[in-house]
Amino acid sequence: MMIVMKQGASEEDVAHVVDRVESIGLSAHVSRGEVLTVIGAIGSKEGRVAELGLEGSPGVDQVLPIMKPYKLASRQFKEGRDSVIEVDGRMVGGGNFGLIAGPCTVENRDQMLESARDVAAAGATMLRGGAYKPRTSPYSFQGLGREGLRLLVEAREETGLPVVTELLDLRDLDDVAEVADVIQIGARNMQNYSLLTEVGRAGKPVLLKRGLSATVEELLMASEYVLKEGNDDVMLCERGIRTFENAYRFTLDLLAVPALKESTHLPVIVDPSHAPGRRDWVEPMALAAVAAGADGIIIEVHNDPEHAICDAAQQVESGTFDELAAKIEAVAEVAGKTVSRA
Amino acid sequence: MMIVMKQGASEEDVAHVVDRVESIGLSAHVSRGEVLTVIGAIGSKEGRVAELGLEGSPGVDQVLPIMKPYKLASRQFKEGRDSVIEVDGRMVGGGNFGLIAGPCTVENRDQMLESARDVAAAGATMLRGGAYKPRTSPYSFQGLGREGLRLLVEAREETGLPVVTELLDLRDLDDVAEVADVIQIGARNMQNYSLLTEVGRAGKPVLLKRGLSATVEELLMASEYVLKEGNDDVMLCERGIRTFENAYRFTLDLLAVPALKESTHLPVIVDPSHAPGRRDWVEPMALAAVAAGADGIIIEVHNDPEHAICDAAQQVESGTFDELAAKIEAVAEVAGKTVSRA
Amino acid sequence: MMIVMKQGASEEDVAHVVDRVESIGLSAHVSRGEVLTVIGAIGSKEGRVAELGLEGSPGVDQVLPIMKPYKLASRQFKEGRDSVIEVDGRMVGGGNFGLIAGPCTVENRDQMLESARDVAAAGATMLRGGAYKPRTSPYSFQGLGREGLRLLVEAREETGLPVVTELLDLRDLDDVAEVADVIQIGARNMQNYSLLTEVGRAGKPVLLKRGLSATVEELLMASEYVLKEGNDDVMLCERGIRTFENAYRFTLDLLAVPALKESTHLPVIVDPSHAPGRRDWVEPMALAAVAAGADGIIIEVHNDPEHAICDAAQQVESGTFDELAAKIEAVAEVAGKTVSRA
Amino acid sequence: MMIVMKQGASEEDVAHVVDRVESIGLSAHVSRGEVLTVIGAIGSKEGRVAELGLEGSPGVDQVLPIMKPYKLASRQFKEGRDSVIEVDGRMVGGGNFGLIAGPCTVENRDQMLESARDVAAAGATMLRGGAYKPRTSPYSFQGLGREGLRLLVEAREETGLPVVTELLDLRDLDDVAEVADVIQIGARNMQNYSLLTEVGRAGKPVLLKRGLSATVEELLMASEYVLKEGNDDVMLCERGIRTFENAYRFTLDLLAVPALKESTHLPVIVDPSHAPGRRDWVEPMALAAVAAGADGIIIEVHNDPEHAICDAAQQVESGTFDELAAKIEAVAEVAGKTVSRA
Repeated sequence: MMIVMKQGASEEDVAHVVDRVESIGLSAHVSRGEVLTVIGAIGSKEGRVAELGLEGSPGVDQVLPIMKPYKLASRQFKEGRDSVIEVDGRMVGGGNFGLIAGPCTVENRDQMLESARDVAAAGATMLRGGAYKPRTSPYSFQGLGREGLRLLVEAREETGLPVVTELLDLRDLDDVAEVADVIQIGARNMQNYSLLTEVGRAGKPVLLKRGLSATVEELLMASEYVLKEGNDDVMLCERGIRTFENAYRFTLDLLAVPALKESTHLPVIVDPSHAPGRRDWVEPMALAAVAAGADGIIIEVHNDPEHAICDAAQQVESGTFDELAAKIEAVAEVAGKTVSRA
Repeated sequence: MMIVMKQGASEEDVAHVVDRVESIGLSAHVSRGEVLTVIGAIGSKEGRVAELGLEGSPGVDQVLPIMKPYKLASRQFKEGRDSVIEVDGRMVGGGNFGLIAGPCTVENRDQMLESARDVAAAGATMLRGGAYKPRTSPYSFQGLGREGLRLLVEAREETGLPVVTELLDLRDLDDVAEVADVIQIGARNMQNYSLLTEVGRAGKPVLLKRGLSATVEELLMASEYVLKEGNDDVMLCERGIRTFENAYRFTLDLLAVPALKESTHLPVIVDPSHAPGRRDWVEPMALAAVAAGADGIIIEVHNDPEHAICDAAQQVESGTFDELAAKIEAVAEVAGKTVSRA
Repeated sequence: MMIVMKQGASEEDVAHVVDRVESIGLSAHVSRGEVLTVIGAIGSKEGRVAELGLEGSPGVDQVLPIMKPYKLASRQFKEGRDSVIEVDGRMVGGGNFGLIAGPCTVENRDQMLESARDVAAAGATMLRGGAYKPRTSPYSFQGLGREGLRLLVEAREETGLPVVTELLDLRDLDDVAEVADVIQIGARNMQNYSLLTEVGRAGKPVLLKRGLSATVEELLMASEYVLKEGNDDVMLCERGIRTFENAYRFTLDLLAVPALKESTHLPVIVDPSHAPGRRDWVEPMALAAVAAGADGIIIEVHNDPEHAICDAAQQVESGTFDELAAKIEAVAEVAGKTVSRA
Repeated sequence: MMIVMKQGASEEDVAHVVDRVESIGLSAHVSRGEVLTVIGAIGSKEGRVAELGLEGSPGVDQVLPIMKPYKLASRQFKEGRDSVIEVDGRMVGGGNFGLIAGPCTVENRDQMLESARDVAAAGATMLRGGAYKPRTSPYSFQGLGREGLRLLVEAREETGLPVVTELLDLRDLDDVAEVADVIQIGARNMQNYSLLTEVGRAGKPVLLKRGLSATVEELLMASEYVLKEGNDDVMLCERGIRTFENAYRFTLDLLAVPALKESTHLPVIVDPSHAPGRRDWVEPMALAAVAAGADGIIIEVHNDPEHAICDAAQQVESGTFDELAAKIEAVAEVAGKTVSRA
């Protein structure tokens, strides 16, 4: 932490800050510049300096963090190497690209199986589908629950594709963990710390979506809750953030891809479906995500999107998904990635 | 829902939309304007039209919601009257102002009791204090838990002030509900739907904080999850939103106060502490919140803020809180509110 | 500037940064912490370090500015004193409150004179009114131009109130400067640097509005363009920023008031009319602005708002403005301000 | 415009709205739904309904615009065809991709000529370079001015590449128009309406950058100011918007590309340099822009970026630009575009 003093801060003000820093067992380095005095307290206990609350103390102008607050997620922790996550033979990360596709929600047996067959035929490497759905309105369809999980198992048996599905409520953890090959944590639960901790203990890879207004640093901090429980297999997922622009549902923030990859060893996935909110804008965003260097995408594909129960407007029709999948592979090649199949 | 067709949409496009609307049992009214055709599907099933996903369908330009998606929270539901929530004799809403004060976190017996005595003496009407703390970092202090709840009981016994405290994890619901007079749901849990549902069944008033990037409409939808369980006593709380400005922690959005009060019968509270993040800016924000028409404020006050474990920079010193409380009352009077004591 | 090196940056990386810093005649202080190395280059030439573009250089993690980039606008420049701006006997700043009111646009003689008389009777200290209007659409009414300026002169003659009016185009500077007592620079021109420079030379007080997405620091930098031309009389004006919330036109950011006043000696004004966009929300925002510590407000008041040419929904009716003005004075008193009349 | 009445709005309220709408010569269609009444006033005079300011009138809940406010920029105006803009034999739009590259600022003869030769060799189709620079600080380098323009002419003569350069101040229009093949209007001037109008009369193609917090609709409205003067050759440019994320300078909003292309016939360009602010993140953003369907990119490339006067951190080294240019062409092919050279 660097504590920047105001111009004209007194010696007493400086001494007070030094005392506070030393009171928690850190050493304080005072640098007197031409105009300003800056007090450094750099080290692994930096978080404790933050808790001193020096902002607004006499003579203090700014308190600037220097250390990254995350550890296990940091690229340094793996000495600069990329983590490669294996899900039933498919790799994600380190040059391996994951193509996760499937319907928003599991609706019924025919829909789920037909969608699964189509995405498998198009070359998807994993299957997505929600059995539990987070809904803004309590009056909307909330998912098939256990019946949905059962249909996902059937779809996996038929296609061989591993299953990615969302966990919403701690009390469903055992049911979801029994079925899922990857447990998804949705954007609205990115800072649901008890859910993160429990999923960290569940022994399954996790796909963690960035919150609607979470910074990339906060996403990394959320992954730290999972990692610290001993679960190393976390994929981070950009899915669009809230901004002033309302011509689309969210603003897909593809700069998060290189920024995350610079800071962390964890693979970075992009969901190109939710931000546009309409299927004709999903293709350009899917290709852009690949070009931006993502390690995979998770995309909504449905056998009959017009009659889908939820997110009908944004699901790509599974019968045409092979064309998009081919373009994705072509762009992945330019970006130095290979789609990893079993 | 109004479905606006593109200029040049064909008769077939229009007929297709009409079919889709009628397929869910609604009637569609087609208005052909000088330039555009608009199809109306207005009624209580509007949510189902949203799920048709007509955005991006052939010839469709925009799909505009007309109905509010919330019901029980709407001002119409109470025929324009304000809800007044009673907490152990203190009223909030309908001209009654609630002054909720206390430390960020329960740290120890002396801190909690001294802070409680000070805020009681200054005229606070309820006591706040966190036993469970949501923390961005898994390495930060997470609250005293049950011991914190016990100290809150002691503080209530000594001062007579009802207690507002946060619930983070479903599994702590019984413990928290036993102690709390008002259960707080934090900003990061505003869309934790299972938590909202359970707290709706707990039979205690709820203080629901707006998420960092939640619209006022989403805050109302979140309250609907609590209200639909039969719990009428919900207070909404503005606490600052995420914007591009980083001169402060959050941007306190006081326009949410009149906007919420126009849409809902529920009382609207403001937390003036978290957005500024430093105590010298808390006073102007507290007064501004009152002037903006809030039905109460919830403010962090600590007997020794410099040594507080968390949010040290933003807590107001309890020994000086009487001066601020007096100004709050003076502004409340101009705004037509009276602080409601037991 | 503090240059924070990555963990594991080499000695060569450090030496390279030191060289670059020294190449522009500054000295570099290297601090080696337990984990990180930080290189300080603190001094009045900090801006030149920014231009070195060290972000992304080998081994560099972050480049953190330490010095404020503004000088003449800084509170230090006036040794902590508030600037008090006098406009024809009315003071703004240093405990003096300015109440600027009048219609959005000058529409015609009757409208202008009647509105002016009403706001004068209610106790306004200055009169606002636009002769040149910035409009999002080229097809909207663009203001009466010179005829509008003439009517403002007539309104001043009748009421004695000094006139605040906006300048949009450099080529109108002489016309506007001849009439205006205060020249307003609108939000969309906050970074129109040639306009700022010229208005700095015009010898009239300036009311500078914050851009829709400008940080408080950028607002101060914009004022620096005016101040450096020798014009000391600049009032800064918060008027609402762009955020994700679309329940109102803009989010009025009242935290900017204490944040600006901490950093600058210049008076801070608030426009409570544009953010709400509807008149029943203007009163709470006006009172909130005063409570937040503003040195004045600039508010749209019209004799017949329903028939106003622009911003009809948000203008307060001048016939009822005396009630609001009385409340404003009451809150100003609590906030330690006095309305300054001639 | 659709005027949505509140539940419980009276017949009188409805009649009042109808009267207001009819007072400006439009017809009002009243639709009474199961719960709500909606009044439609659809037609080419919709803008005038906006000016009635019905928001906040008795019984009025919402006023929803239906018509697009732009005309000449709309895709309908060209009956669905893409505009193709020719600049000295290079095409942009309609499948033709423009690769505009060059230094941020013209610094000196050697820098300009060497950078120009390198980008020409790598296959760029136009040359960028700023002679007039908008700077947040009045103390920063403001560009070489006329001398910069002269060097751009020399670079064009040597390489044959047409020149894109920015106009900041109306008073420099003649100088800039004499030299530029394309006149750039920067983000901070996107709503400088007098500049837009004059540049619309200058008879040169215009590259119009999106403002930092401008919606895509506002960008289209700004282009309308240019188009209405008879200048059809406008390229729109996404360059990053302001959001809460501060891990990068701006959030590059690539969804704006398909959204703009759906609404307008004008070509859409992306600047991938300013948002990242560091060169190692420019490549992924450049490729992502192409994949998202942009009609061109404008990218900062410098012969010696480490010693650049401004934006040093983000300029790509011209000596290595051929590799990036080759990847850009490869992705453009997948996206169905061809780089258009003379």
